[in-house]
Amino acid sequence: MALDAWTSELKRMTDLFNSLSDEDLIREVAPGRNRGMYLLGHMASVHDGLMVLLRFEPAMMFPELQPIFHHTPDRAVADADLPSIATLREQYKTVNDRLMQHFSATTPDEWFSRHNNLSEEDFAKEPHRNRLNVVLSRTSHMAYHRGQVVFLTKKV
Amino acid sequence: MALDAWTSELKRMTDLFNSLSDEDLIREVAPGRNRGMYLLGHMASVHDGLMVLLRFEPAMMFPELQPIFHHTPDRAVADADLPSIATLREQYKTVNDRLMQHFSATTPDEWFSRHNNLSEEDFAKEPHRNRLNVVLSRTSHMAYHRGQVVFLTKKV
Repeated sequence: MALDAWTSELKRMTDLFNSLSDEDLIREVAPGRNRGMYLLGHMASVHDGLMVLLRFEPAMMFPELQPIFHHTPDRAVADADLPSIATLREQYKTVNDRLMQHFSATTPDEWFSRHNNLSEEDFAKEPHRNRLNVVLSRTSHMAYHRGQVVFLTKKV
Repeated sequence: MALDAWTSELKRMTDLFNSLSDEDLIREVAPGRNRGMYLLGHMASVHDGLMVLLRFEPAMMFPELQPIFHHTPDRAVADADLPSIATLREQYKTVNDRLMQHFSATTPDEWFSRHNNLSEEDFAKEPHRNRLNVVLSRTSHMAYHRGQVVFLTKKV
């Protein structure tokens, strides 16, 4: 069920980004707030890091995104130094496709094993800090930002 | 874990509403979008309906909110006909407190039983359509709107 929730939220987020033009993504979602392209890079980078946190990958696929789209706010990095929106769209797709492959290949027992930011000893004391729990939390994170990106769509 | 995710998302949403003044809640979260007070009433009404959907209550506590904050968009109802923000804050609290009481009293087996919009026969075919699954989906719904209400806070 948690994976279904992830899959359905990811589909909504992806459909939303795909429905927006590059021009839409250059706009701020609300006055003085993040631009759409920042949130696109943010989702790509956070889900990239999720694969490491879930112990699916030894390292991030696009570590260069993290300082720009995760560790600093929008506009901290000069526009000239940002990847293009086309590149970000591609990286977003690559990361999320790979993540879904890992999700499909993971057994129930593996889901209830610890995530990467936790020692075996701490996990013994706090068994709810497992991989599946991280997925629940990142599903809400995605919904949170989807509620913002939707402001780039035209009002009906 | 799903209930922990609900509880932590609800706490964030409630803390956010509590940090906002009535004047903040009168503002639109973004130009031309819902006002904060609409989203406050929306969360109260959707969670009120959730208690019926989860078969915790036979009827909604505040059915009068539903036509205003769920079935129609913001500003469809004249401001003079809206409940006050103080009333909405109280109803939001009443509904969510009651919901948490029901959550605490529900056993694991009960969580995996069907929700109200589903016949016993359909549930036999689709056992994932249970109460817990509804909670996952409403957790994302809450996060989605929290990402919007946060725009009423001052930028740091």
